[in-house]
Amino acid sequence: MNVRDLGTPALVIDADALEHNLVTMAAARPGTSLRPHVKAHKSTSLAAAQAAHGHPSFTCATPREVVGLAAAGLGHDLLLANEVLDPRRLAMLAAAQEHASITVAVDSPETVDAAAAAGLRQALIDVNIGLPRCGCRPREAGHIADLARTRGMTVRGVMGYEGHLMVVPDHAEQEAKVRDAVDRLLAAHADVGGEVISAGGTGTYHLHDRVTEVQAGSYALMDSHYAQLGRPFQQACFVVGTVISANPRFAVADVGLKAMGMDHGNPSIAEFDGSGADVWFLSDEHITFVPHVGVASVGERVWVVPAHIDPTMAMHDVAWLVRGHEVIDRWPIDLRGW
Amino acid sequence: MNVRDLGTPALVIDADALEHNLVTMAAARPGTSLRPHVKAHKSTSLAAAQAAHGHPSFTCATPREVVGLAAAGLGHDLLLANEVLDPRRLAMLAAAQEHASITVAVDSPETVDAAAAAGLRQALIDVNIGLPRCGCRPREAGHIADLARTRGMTVRGVMGYEGHLMVVPDHAEQEAKVRDAVDRLLAAHADVGGEVISAGGTGTYHLHDRVTEVQAGSYALMDSHYAQLGRPFQQACFVVGTVISANPRFAVADVGLKAMGMDHGNPSIAEFDGSGADVWFLSDEHITFVPHVGVASVGERVWVVPAHIDPTMAMHDVAWLVRGHEVIDRWPIDLRGW
Repeated sequence: MNVRDLGTPALVIDADALEHNLVTMAAARPGTSLRPHVKAHKSTSLAAAQAAHGHPSFTCATPREVVGLAAAGLGHDLLLANEVLDPRRLAMLAAAQEHASITVAVDSPETVDAAAAAGLRQALIDVNIGLPRCGCRPREAGHIADLARTRGMTVRGVMGYEGHLMVVPDHAEQEAKVRDAVDRLLAAHADVGGEVISAGGTGTYHLHDRVTEVQAGSYALMDSHYAQLGRPFQQACFVVGTVISANPRFAVADVGLKAMGMDHGNPSIAEFDGSGADVWFLSDEHITFVPHVGVASVGERVWVVPAHIDPTMAMHDVAWLVRGHEVIDRWPIDLRGW
Repeated sequence: MNVRDLGTPALVIDADALEHNLVTMAAARPGTSLRPHVKAHKSTSLAAAQAAHGHPSFTCATPREVVGLAAAGLGHDLLLANEVLDPRRLAMLAAAQEHASITVAVDSPETVDAAAAAGLRQALIDVNIGLPRCGCRPREAGHIADLARTRGMTVRGVMGYEGHLMVVPDHAEQEAKVRDAVDRLLAAHADVGGEVISAGGTGTYHLHDRVTEVQAGSYALMDSHYAQLGRPFQQACFVVGTVISANPRFAVADVGLKAMGMDHGNPSIAEFDGSGADVWFLSDEHITFVPHVGVASVGERVWVVPAHIDPTMAMHDVAWLVRGHEVIDRWPIDLRGW
């Protein structure tokens, strides 16, 4: 099958670019020094490829991701790097402990109580290291760890996410700020103990020599937001559309904002008719764009690059693995939802 | 069941606000003078409620929406207000003609050819009336209609969408611009013929006395973008989240940008703890916000108002119909995808 035979919009993964990215990261952070974040792709097939490149542990953002990876036989060491209070889904996680090692993030007495009451056995203390999101203050971490141990949980260590530092144009500034963030995490770890110090992402994976593991996810497929960093990863994911309407001023393809995460702004166009094109705007089911050269023809294909890979993956139920324009596999996006 | 018992993020529809909106629109545009656009909710349950309010015809943006409505017994008069070239999905539409009346938009010789070749029997000529998206130029419409008739199709009339005029703050300016847009559509209709002149949306439904039907969709559930217009519709859709982390400076709930369309910017917070709250930012699975009064508690619920209803609906697989905080029904979002 050829990309031309796919119904559009079609989520397409370039197998060679993906392989390049997996090999590159596995060389930089081999084995358990990378805990790939599956929220960036939500596919057990892609997670299996990461495992095949030597990474047996995974990071998840939702209970659904944890349970799905466990059911797929990828449950060697799963971290839910997020707080959950819902007893029903915590019970699902506890049940999955039968055939998977599951560790949950906690950052408050309430989240410790919920996890312990559900029968979850392992925790990391989630520490705020600068991003205004989840995580306790570093000086509270020891107390939260004590609460968890009192409730019978094993506290494996600490995690933090310096999400506000993923895209800092000046390298020296980024390095200094990441150092400060890790200082906070290590201060918390001194009070918490445990063998795990987990942090980082695709924007900072190369700066982490004082943590035990990095939680990068976007590196596998990439997007135009992370591409601006100049890291050694290639764009591996595209949403392919069909031109359904065209005139001398602009063209319209069937890749709309229901097929493309828009929180990082408009996507871009990788190639169009051997040249390029500028994106004008997106509607629910349409992208209006202006080819750099000539006039588009109805029926032509356009390859669109997401500005943010994570929400884009969550909008599709299948990804097509391609080599050139040949379709070589079909990967379900089977970890969607919560 | 109470809203408190729902796993979060939970898509919630206020039954009374929805009923108010359906009644209000049915009074303004009764029967077939409204062709509700299902892309705004993607639910056959909600479409059935619109049909119960007297609207037997529907507008769709995707083949999946058409086929799903037909299978649900709502196929009295379905318009696919979008161009499709994919032979496989056109064949699905043609097969659905067995138990539904299906009309497709065409705007070029290529889209006429594709529809006719698949065996589709009815078309509207899609006319560009100012929005740079699909639609032929008004003076080309007669030619496209002739092509369709030559291919054996029944041409039922014309459609256009003045999407660029949905939100114009000055009422007189909006009215004048809509008049110009409808002038173009009527010029095309003079060349095309047929009994259907279809246009409009929630932002302009009250200005259309020269078309036979309006394609509004957002009026049923609304969003903060359309709310600024001051039309007589109430906010009926919310994404309910749980506070999973809180401190004196801010709170974090589990309603992220994978649960919320972001192309119209950040959502807002309808109510929080009897007061309000300001949204700071969203991540994949989190909303960081600042309560107007006091400090949030872990476990509290927050009701978030989408800035754009259409992509928000497409991110969820179920909506919970509620009256106050009591859950009274479960509506599958069963028309997702393409």
